[in-house]
Amino acid sequence: MSSHHIVKEKQEPALIIANGESCSEELLGQLLEWSPFIVVLDHAIYRVLELGIKIDVWMGDFDHNHDFDQIRQSQYPLEIISTPDQDKTDLEKAIDFLIMRGFPAANIIWATGRRADHSISNITNLVRYKHTIRLVMLDDYSKIFPLRGVFEKWYVAGTPISLIPVGVVNGIHTSGLKYNLNNETLSLGYRTGNSNETEADGMVRISASEGDLIIMECWD
Amino acid sequence: MSSHHIVKEKQEPALIIANGESCSEELLGQLLEWSPFIVVLDHAIYRVLELGIKIDVWMGDFDHNHDFDQIRQSQYPLEIISTPDQDKTDLEKAIDFLIMRGFPAANIIWATGRRADHSISNITNLVRYKHTIRLVMLDDYSKIFPLRGVFEKWYVAGTPISLIPVGVVNGIHTSGLKYNLNNETLSLGYRTGNSNETEADGMVRISASEGDLIIMECWD
Repeated sequence: MSSHHIVKEKQEPALIIANGESCSEELLGQLLEWSPFIVVLDHAIYRVLELGIKIDVWMGDFDHNHDFDQIRQSQYPLEIISTPDQDKTDLEKAIDFLIMRGFPAANIIWATGRRADHSISNITNLVRYKHTIRLVMLDDYSKIFPLRGVFEKWYVAGTPISLIPVGVVNGIHTSGLKYNLNNETLSLGYRTGNSNETEADGMVRISASEGDLIIMECWD
Repeated sequence: MSSHHIVKEKQEPALIIANGESCSEELLGQLLEWSPFIVVLDHAIYRVLELGIKIDVWMGDFDHNHDFDQIRQSQYPLEIISTPDQDKTDLEKAIDFLIMRGFPAANIIWATGRRADHSISNITNLVRYKHTIRLVMLDDYSKIFPLRGVFEKWYVAGTPISLIPVGVVNGIHTSGLKYNLNNETLSLGYRTGNSNETEADGMVRISASEGDLIIMECWD
């Protein structure tokens, strides 16, 4: 689906295809439009092969038998990277790999849904990379990214915006939302900023003085 | 699917059907087997009606038009409870309702998947009820519950167990797991106890001195 004949200048975000619930072909197609550098995790390779996507890197701990020769042939040239480190998830390994290769940004799909432990870890782990690489996680219902410094973006009125604190987040200020926060604290499990929305067409501004905040644009 | 002619003694857990991704009919059937008291949230009513399940309570903020008469007739007797409080999610309102009605326990389905903001809030909000009602959230890949005091359960070898800290959890001790923790700290976004598993057939024991820990049994 992507041509891969152009030289990649690492200006476009790379794309990580993880091993959770598949997204719509429409979302996948949008992300493939600019021929990104594509990293596929572990067993997701089989669903990716079925979709006929040309990828660049296949990573995993490869604790199951795979027909490496056949997969390599169908995707030539393909980098296959075995990552047996048990202290990291496959997604963490892929993000570390992209940082090492100098990518400034990556989109991540198929990282949510299915197993709740993987899903919640994949989402909340985004915050630990907020100073090193711009990450956006996407699925059919959600666009998920960590707050880095001050967030400012123009939205149309009524866009749902949720603020999810990874632990406790202090000193949150927002403007442009229906329920704005003024130097307030959110605490996961007790008080989250769920199902807020933009008040009018215009800029939304979100900042926090301490802690890790995740911003989600979600829709039904 | 459930008969409802028996008198309910509030010994069996109630069942909350939320408004996320539907689960398999097999899981639903297992949970309906003992004719639980069933609370359905908001728009999930339409998927529930299609399944032909007799329910007891329908709750929601009802900000959309519904044909209340027709739904009431098809489910008679049915308690319809309008809950316009915007500071709580529909799931929180349902849990509060069951506590008020004296239920000691509830299973929760359809609360995960789809919108990531709802899913992560529904899962992590479980911890705030750990002293008042026994809650278990289930989907096709996961069984999710908060640690209450000391957790002890017999498992077969190789059962996946993940420990998800809601924020920071200190003084975690485990036994019976492949990677046991000995007075250790887990911190969401930075260090979670993902993809651990039981070491052998036998008891697993999990405790923590401070913080909110969620235990997940997950499978692919």
